[in-house]
Order: sequence, then structure tokens, then C-alpha cells
Amino acid sequence: MSAYKDMSREELVELKKKLDQEFADIKAKGLKLDMSRGKPSVEQLNLSMGMMDVLMSDVDLTDSKGVDCRNYGVLDGLTETKQLLADMMEVPKDQIIIFGNSSLNIMYDTISRAMTHGILGSTPWAKLDKVKFLCPVPGYDRHFAITEHFGIEMINVPMTSEGPDMDMVEKLVSEDEAVKGIWCVPKYSNPQGITYSEKTVRRFANLKPAARDFRIFWDNAYGIHHLYEDHQDYLLEILMECKKAGNPDMVYKFASTSKISFPGSGIAAIASSPNNIAEILDTMKIQTIGHDKVNQLRHTRFFGDIHGMVNHMKKHADILRPKFEAVTDTLEKELGGLGIGSWMKPYGGYFISFDSMEGCAKKIVAKAKEAGVVMTAAGATFPYGKDPKDSNIRIAPSFPSQEELKMATEIFVLSVKIVSIEKILEEKPEENAVQQ
Amino acid sequence: MSAYKDMSREELVELKKKLDQEFADIKAKGLKLDMSRGKPSVEQLNLSMGMMDVLMSDVDLTDSKGVDCRNYGVLDGLTETKQLLADMMEVPKDQIIIFGNSSLNIMYDTISRAMTHGILGSTPWAKLDKVKFLCPVPGYDRHFAITEHFGIEMINVPMTSEGPDMDMVEKLVSEDEAVKGIWCVPKYSNPQGITYSEKTVRRFANLKPAARDFRIFWDNAYGIHHLYEDHQDYLLEILMECKKAGNPDMVYKFASTSKISFPGSGIAAIASSPNNIAEILDTMKIQTIGHDKVNQLRHTRFFGDIHGMVNHMKKHADILRPKFEAVTDTLEKELGGLGIGSWMKPYGGYFISFDSMEGCAKKIVAKAKEAGVVMTAAGATFPYGKDPKDSNIRIAPSFPSQEELKMATEIFVLSVKIVSIEKILEEKPEENAVQQ
Repeated sequence: MSAYKDMSREELVELKKKLDQEFADIKAKGLKLDMSRGKPSVEQLNLSMGMMDVLMSDVDLTDSKGVDCRNYGVLDGLTETKQLLADMMEVPKDQIIIFGNSSLNIMYDTISRAMTHGILGSTPWAKLDKVKFLCPVPGYDRHFAITEHFGIEMINVPMTSEGPDMDMVEKLVSEDEAVKGIWCVPKYSNPQGITYSEKTVRRFANLKPAARDFRIFWDNAYGIHHLYEDHQDYLLEILMECKKAGNPDMVYKFASTSKISFPGSGIAAIASSPNNIAEILDTMKIQTIGHDKVNQLRHTRFFGDIHGMVNHMKKHADILRPKFEAVTDTLEKELGGLGIGSWMKPYGGYFISFDSMEGCAKKIVAKAKEAGVVMTAAGATFPYGKDPKDSNIRIAPSFPSQEELKMATEIFVLSVKIVSIEKILEEKPEENAVQQ
Repeated sequence: MSAYKDMSREELVELKKKLDQEFADIKAKGLKLDMSRGKPSVEQLNLSMGMMDVLMSDVDLTDSKGVDCRNYGVLDGLTETKQLLADMMEVPKDQIIIFGNSSLNIMYDTISRAMTHGILGSTPWAKLDKVKFLCPVPGYDRHFAITEHFGIEMINVPMTSEGPDMDMVEKLVSEDEAVKGIWCVPKYSNPQGITYSEKTVRRFANLKPAARDFRIFWDNAYGIHHLYEDHQDYLLEILMECKKAGNPDMVYKFASTSKISFPGSGIAAIASSPNNIAEILDTMKIQTIGHDKVNQLRHTRFFGDIHGMVNHMKKHADILRPKFEAVTDTLEKELGGLGIGSWMKPYGGYFISFDSMEGCAKKIVAKAKEAGVVMTAAGATFPYGKDPKDSNIRIAPSFPSQEELKMATEIFVLSVKIVSIEKILEEKPEENAVQQ
């Protein structure tokens, strides 16, 4: 198939007529499909139903240290739960704190605490004239929402196939004391599925921040969320690299079991240096008496250990893999060679990132919605919801059934084609037709 | 028995010798007893074990609105859980938000949010030179820890048998714009077990605060935590009273099931006016995707409705009542008429408050510890841990067994007697002996 931009005006008009008709036919079906959020499917949720039978009234709810998990106490988490999540996060178990059900909430608290109390003795950020965060783009909208909520200025840093543009990160972090943090989803990134290269992680670990309270917010949300057995990305462990580089306190690392057991009913954790962990616990003891230990026990007994958890993730992969492939295959088959969009085929995570021609993303999402397909809002993958090129669209293939996904992707590519032709026609000089 | 102060020096010295011997005998037993925190006993925890069997792998985890509780979503809580906790808190169900496992965490977040974002458009408290909170004393140490953590100045307000000294509250709240809040445990108060009178609640509702972002932090921790069937305190519902008084936004009301189901694995909630609730949700949507709905469903199905919950609380009362009575009976029997301490007999809640002679509380707690009894630190019931009279001691009778409690209370009264005699002897002029 030839690229759209090489086609004549007539050809494009003719093609559009045909595509419009196809679109009208599909629209008439009145579908309701959702590819907007990274929600596990019902089939995936069913994988963890055994967790409901682990703790029953005839089971002893005492942990390995003799703690009655039904009562108050234990601020940092059960010993065995810390071990399990430390293994999951590839950190020592004394450098981890188990929280409640949401790693997002830990990130919010971490920023909030820095706002009101600073970090390891630094000036509270709320008392500074200006606080800035670096935001690799495209990125995760909920990260950006937190920093926006606290009035933190966000600076876009372009992603490359190896992670954020590190020349830019190094320059901004070392030159500007107002730069206090950077949001990272370092493995199977949201939305592109990119894993930071070893070189990128080492450059992160060796940053020379102007601000001593600069922190890397390392949201390793998809650490064990592979799609393939035979092709898995490998991420260098950042805490150890920072320690080696003489920057032990520079990273907060986040993770949860939201996409391992049940989203919203899982357990989340932070890992960091002993100094940072001690400071966090110092605030936590004011904030709460402790998190839900019964749920910690339930998770630990269900998975057993990291081997059990890894095996569990293979079952998720078996459900997710065909969905991801259905989308990327359709994109390749329908849009390959047309020059109206690009995308990456991820090896893990929850998203496929699509880049349309400039100025088309919002229209494509709107067009798909006409036919009943809800996508993540265009722009959502950028701070302030503003994609400067209006081209990035996040596709979340996990929740719909295989059948729904096929339909939704067809509507999506149809929308891409129609909007792209409209764009090309707008820009193609009328003369073009005359010249032929 | 005559009051110690009326006894001669010789009599006191003689008595002390006898008590010291008794104390030495008990100390030699090397006991380890804990009356320090309001922890439910194992017997109480067992009451809720049925909750572990409510949700199993063969049970549908869909709520009454068709929400799959295993997946992301629902920021404010399940409909049926909101109904249950709204009934428990005596508020309309659209004025409540269900949170995670800790009402303390909600209070912390509420203060933290006011610090960084103000309340309904007011200046963020962190940007003000001075923020003050009124603290009815004796009160709950964890409340005071939150306000201290945020650098909020705390002002002691004495408790009366009807609640805080409202003359003082009215004056401070109406005259000082820096006064932004007051901590209240209005029913079976921590530690005295006092329930605010109707008049007190009405005076609260009719406050005329100088600060438009003044809020009453109404921690109704013991709303249904009665000890008796035939004598229950009644608390006027503050949200409605505030609405009637034209102060609808003036109260944040907190509660949890920590001492109903499992402490640390229960569910907590805030209730407030529609304006306040909308503002809280506006921040919550940045903070989290939602709280643990599986645990909400588990609680709701276990209790069924408020009737089920009230019946459940009767079982708690049956376990707690003899413990409270064991303590108050011993206090009465051993200390009655001695003039060295006073206490109240509560009809609910988790504590018995004891007031020693001035300047004796720290020594009594230390003395009891010598014999293996851990009490709440003296001073803990006051802001900054400073009891100006050094006389208040909080007794928590819930956790120990009946046998342990009997022993611990004996050690406690022995400690009170010994320390009181020492105090009287210190102050009694030597001449006293001569004059006889």
C-alpha cells in the first residue's frame, strides 16, 4: 500500500468516501467499547480468586513473628510481606515499607510530605518560590496530576528508545536547584512500553543534582509484568546503582500488586535508602497506626514467595499477550506503510503507544468515540494534558475481550485513516489536482 | 478508711513500709502486663472471624450496583458500604466517603490538605504565620501528634463533665482568626469516657468563628461502643445541628470499624457537608484510584446492616464490661476515700481516666512499670506530652485478660498509694510529728 501523502487528491477523496461508509456502518452498530485505562480483564481477576480462600475463620492469622494480624500494630509491614515485595522490587527487605492498597497514594504522600516538611532537613517545598519536576513524555497522567495539584512546574523531557533524553535530564538537574524530581516508569513504560537501558539507569544514578533534595520518583509499576517468556526486558536496579555512585538517598522506588492480584485491593510499597526509609516511618507513625496486615498476610500466603508470584504473572501474560498482538497486528496490517502513524510493540506493561500525524490525535480520539470506542483522552500522556504535537494516543488493550478488542482496534484504525486523510487534504494545495 | 492527708507522718511511714513490701512481693513475680493502648482483646477479635468466610472464591464479588469490587474504580465507596457507615455515623449516605483502614489517616490527610491547599478557597495554612488548634484536655495523643507534626500551636481547653469548657471555646474561636480547628472525641471521650451534652453540641454548632476555614474535627470513634444495654449515652448529631445553625460546612466527622471488626483491617469514613465532601473528593481523585472495595464488600456482607452491627457491638460489650468494672471496682475498693485520686466510671469507649494528686502521674506510671505494668505514658493525654498538673493517667482495660487485668490494677493502685504517700511526706512539715 502506498503512503497517503503520495496519493493524489482524487484518490484520497475517493478513499475517504469509502472509509466514511465503512465508519457509518460500524457506527450504526451502537457499540460500547473501552480502551481507555489499564484495567485487568475479568479473566485476569479470576486468576487471583484463590486468594479469597487463603484466610478463613479456621485459619490462624498470626504471622511468622507471632504478630496477630487482626490487631493494631506493625508500622512497616509483616516480615514475610516485606520479603515478598522486596524480592519483587529487587531490594533488601530492610529498605522497604508496606503501605495500603495504592502506590499512587504513596507517591502523593511522598510529594505532600516534601511540600510540608522538606526531605532530610531541606526547606519544605511549599516555602520555595518555585519547584519544578521533569516529566519524560509521553508519560503517566496520574503522575502529572499529582505535581500539578501541588503547583509544581512540569518540564517535558522527550523519551527515546532508551529512556528519557539524559543529556537534557543531566543538564536541567545539575543546573537548576528548583528541579526537585523526575517521574519515571522505567520498565515497560506507560504508555510506550520502553525499558530504560543500562546506560540510562547508570546516568540516572550518577546525576549531580543542584538540589540536595532532588529525588527520582521511580515508579516500577510493571517490574514483573512481562508478555513473553522468551523476550523479557531487563532493568538495572536503581537503588544499588545509586549507592555505588555515592547517591544512596536519591531514589524513591514504588510498586504494588495492583496488576498482580486485585487492583484496589492489593498491597503497595516504597523502597529507598535507610535514611529515606527512616524519615518516611517518622511521618507514618503520625499518620497511621499501621496498614492492613490481614491483606498483607492474605497476599503472602497466596503467593508464597517470589517464585509463586512470577508463575502467577505467566498466567496474566497468557491472557494479555494475544490482546496486545491483536492490536499491533491490526495496526501493522491496516496502517503499515501508509505513513500516517507509528507505534511500538511492547514486551510487557499495559499499553501500546500510538503516534499519529501531528495535529490529529484529538480528532482521532473524538472520531473513535463517535463509533462507541472510548480511548484515553488525547493529551493525557503529557503534563497539563497538552501534547504539543497533538499526536500521542495511549491504547489500553487489557480490559476488553478479544472480540471487543478486535472491533475497537478496527474502529481505531478507521478513525486514524479518515482523520489523516482530512489532514492531508487540508494541507495539500488545490494545484496538486491541476498539476496531474 | 481515712484520707491519707489526715494521717500522721508515723502512720504514713508505717503504711508505706507495708505497701513497699507488698510491692516488692509482686515485683518479684516478674510480670508483663499492658494497659497502655486501646487494643481489643483476642476474644473480641474472635467475634469477627466469621468475616473471613464471607467472601470466598465461589462468591460473586459484585456489589449491588454491579461494580466488580476486584477491579479499579469507585472513589467514594460502595453504595451499600456508604449506607452502612452512614447509619453508623447517623448521617445521610451522600455525605460520606469511605476510605481505607484508618480514620487517623483521614484526619492526617484532612490537616495536610488544609496545610497545602486551604479549605474551600481559604489561604493554605502553610502560608500563614500562625495556625492554632484547640485541644480539650485530657485528650487523644495521636490527635495532638498530628497538629504538632504540622507545627500547629495547640491550646489546652479543660474538659468538664459536659464536654469542653464552651465559654473558653466560644471566646477563642470567635476572637482569634488563627484558631482553625478543635479536636473532639465527643462520645465516650478518650480518655475520660465523657459524652458531650446536648447543650455543648448546640453551642458547638452555633459557634461564630473568626476564621471562615475553622473546622471542628469530630472524631466519633466510639459512637456505638456502649458498655451497657440499660445505660447508653446519647450524642446529638452535629452535622444536622450545624446545618440548622447555618454553619453547614463547619464539621468534619470521622469514624471507623477499627474497634468493631479488626483494628488495622477495618474501614474508615469521613462525613461532612456536600461542599466539604466535594472538595475532599477533588483531592482524593489525585491521591488514589480508590480504596479497598473487597474489604468494603466483606464488611458490608458480614454486618448486613446497622442492626447487625449494633448486635455485634453487644458481644463486644459483654467482653469489655466486666473488665471495666474490674478496674473501677478495684479503684473504688482500694482508693475510695483516700483522697489521693479521682476517676470516672464510663458507660462506653475504651478508657478509664485517672487523676492522681498533682505531680504524681509520671512517678506512678514509672512505679507500675517497675512491677511490669505498662501504662500509657503520663502526659500523653495532653498536647506536647505535657500535663501541667502531672496528674492524668489513662487506663486501657480492653486488651489484658480478666486475670491479668486484676493483677495489673492491683499493681496500679499500689503504685498510686506509694507515690502518693511519698508526695504527702515530702510536703508534710516535719513539725507535724512534733506537734502530736
